Amino acid sequence: MVENLVEYIAHYTSLNDSEVAALERFVKKQHFEKNEIIFTEGKVSNEIYFVTKGCVRLFYNVEGRDRTAFFYTEGQFICAGESFTFHVPAKESYQAIEGTELYVFSKPSIDKLLEISSTFELIARIAVENELIVCQNIIASFVTKSAEERYVELLETNGELFQRVPQQYIASFLGVSPETLSRIKKRVFTKKDS
Amino acid sequence: MVENLVEYIAHYTSLNDSEVAALERFVKKQHFEKNEIIFTEGKVSNEIYFVTKGCVRLFYNVEGRDRTAFFYTEGQFICAGESFTFHVPAKESYQAIEGTELYVFSKPSIDKLLEISSTFELIARIAVENELIVCQNIIASFVTKSAEERYVELLETNGELFQRVPQQYIASFLGVSPETLSRIKKRVFTKKDS
Repeated sequence: MVENLVEYIAHYTSLNDSEVAALERFVKKQHFEKNEIIFTEGKVSNEIYFVTKGCVRLFYNVEGRDRTAFFYTEGQFICAGESFTFHVPAKESYQAIEGTELYVFSKPSIDKLLEISSTFELIARIAVENELIVCQNIIASFVTKSAEERYVELLETNGELFQRVPQQYIASFLGVSPETLSRIKKRVFTKKDS
Repeated sequence: MVENLVEYIAHYTSLNDSEVAALERFVKKQHFEKNEIIFTEGKVSNEIYFVTKGCVRLFYNVEGRDRTAFFYTEGQFICAGESFTFHVPAKESYQAIEGTELYVFSKPSIDKLLEISSTFELIARIAVENELIVCQNIIASFVTKSAEERYVELLETNGELFQRVPQQYIASFLGVSPETLSRIKKRVFTKKDS
């Protein structure tokens, strides 16, 4: 059941049989339908997720409208850091935007895993590090790039997302209206063709 | 020498004498003058910092002009995550904006510490977690708030920064010109007084 996860972890460290068995026992796989909400702001997060299939949208509620900040795909950890660490209500929400499968690490499961083997402490760090890198890249992109540049960056680094993600979420991710996104696309593809 | 650090770590876990001795041996304290650059984009980061005194500005170079993304003060870890983890050139730069003292964890020192005690694995995770929380809060603020709202947020959560940080960096952090910052300030303080 946890093959994908073990394969991912193998990039960093190998697990012995009892560690794999512990993962099998304590990590649960959960399926979410397209558009299903995984976690909602205002709640206290006590789970970390690992995406094994599908696509998860991170969004924030801004006066009743939602703003997309990121899309997680296969092989990424998801963690509402402050809420998970300090038990405060989360600011972020997560939604499956395709049929999605996640491995769910609950807080008690993580505690159990950490008791069983210190290798899981390393894995916990890797999970947090990966989420940190995602976040630092989001910030760099926000601070240094225009909407059009962010569109081109997304196209170059993660072009397949455009097939998977509804256009209104791409627009919201870029902080522009769907109409402006259409204009940006036209400009970018005109440039590419010329 | 490492008292501040041990005190900070004590919020999470206690260290025995040999662990404190290992910190004394492998972590070096470094002083930076006001305006001194600590780390520059384009280099590969092989250090994690812990601020024990002063204030550090995180900034990005945008076509020759710099844009401020965050201010770190006492008790915070600083890590250029992607560069440190994957040995790629960093996008971010760090500058001391007051006389600043940092504990510097070099990569070889971290490896040594991790060999000595698994407690340091936990501490490494805490460091990364703290940086993650900072980053997730920056993103939430960027995505959900206007420049004026971000000004008010900074004032409420970290008001003393206004005494410490030159106004042009505050403006750059908010993504506005110094003139717009003056107008924002006037509006905010008129509202407060009324």
